Amino acid sequence: MKFYDCQSAPSPRRARIFIQEKGLKIESIEVNLGKGEQLTDDFRRINPRCTVPVLELDDGTALTENAGIAAYLEALTPEPPLLGTSAEEKALVANWNARVELEGLWAIADALRNRSKGMIGRAITGPTDYAQIPELAERGLARANEFFETLNQRLGNSEYVAGDHFSMADITAYVCADFAAWVKSGPTEAQTNTKRWLELLGDRPSLSG
Amino acid sequence: MKFYDCQSAPSPRRARIFIQEKGLKIESIEVNLGKGEQLTDDFRRINPRCTVPVLELDDGTALTENAGIAAYLEALTPEPPLLGTSAEEKALVANWNARVELEGLWAIADALRNRSKGMIGRAITGPTDYAQIPELAERGLARANEFFETLNQRLGNSEYVAGDHFSMADITAYVCADFAAWVKSGPTEAQTNTKRWLELLGDRPSLSG
Repeated sequence: MKFYDCQSAPSPRRARIFIQEKGLKIESIEVNLGKGEQLTDDFRRINPRCTVPVLELDDGTALTENAGIAAYLEALTPEPPLLGTSAEEKALVANWNARVELEGLWAIADALRNRSKGMIGRAITGPTDYAQIPELAERGLARANEFFETLNQRLGNSEYVAGDHFSMADITAYVCADFAAWVKSGPTEAQTNTKRWLELLGDRPSLSG
Repeated sequence: MKFYDCQSAPSPRRARIFIQEKGLKIESIEVNLGKGEQLTDDFRRINPRCTVPVLELDDGTALTENAGIAAYLEALTPEPPLLGTSAEEKALVANWNARVELEGLWAIADALRNRSKGMIGRAITGPTDYAQIPELAERGLARANEFFETLNQRLGNSEYVAGDHFSMADITAYVCADFAAWVKSGPTEAQTNTKRWLELLGDRPSLSG
């Protein structure tokens, strides 16, 4: 297996944390998104979508989405479980992970990619150039702020995002919280449940990188 | 269990097909989105996010995302498998399902919700009103058309969307193909691999509703 990563980007960071939480050592190749290495012919042969993360299996199959990478690694290395154990746990991990993506991560991406000077003409990841939409950056920011209120409410009722155990939903939410700083959003001081959760997660080595 | 559905909407349709493919009978309650029933106090008590589908478990837990509903039902009723069996199958189902959502479903939703007269001020599902962004409707349509080219390419290499078996990725892609008609997108006559796949799926009773 080979893992195509980018240290500065939120999506590959999710996969990187997942791999480290599983205790796996996988050969890693850095793809410099700042220099546009994802758009080169060499990288297109690995992933025509021109995105990271990619987990390339030994038969050449390329997993290009966090959902696919997580499902594979959970099946291959079930311990420690990061996608839940019982039916209800599996459901809540999948449900909260989807909510954090939809309401949090994609909203922050809208906010960043539609106003960053470095992303003019590159408002969507992938091989096709799409123009920025400034109104969408504003909407994304409003939705991101709304999401962090939702997260704080949830963490008032639940130790971790999806229940009693650390899971993929925590990984996605943690990456979200850091990523949000790029658009001046993120958990506020008043969101004390989120603060408790960040302290709970604080010393996990996987999150420090 | 109770299943909160809406016959005319694509997201609950995905869950409805999943339930039927599993051969399950679950009490179903129709939520009329056209009349705004998802925004009533009664429905907010079930799902404060004001969206369908919702699968309400007997302990009151509300699964509000297709990912959560599918994970629960697959764990509860493993046969027939809709999320894959081997590690690689599970990975490819999750990977393709995520791609169909991101590149297809959300793009079509952008195209529809940001220009439909019935959705003025309701460009995002959920409790908060967000204004339409006409430029985003255009971008969504362009991305949807790009997605159907991707789908056709994939179906040139694979019998079903994620591999050799019918899976959740087929459900999402099929719902996408129908949903796209609302914005005058969808598979074209020239996309013959998709045409083959639509014929292959054509007689599944779950897809007729």
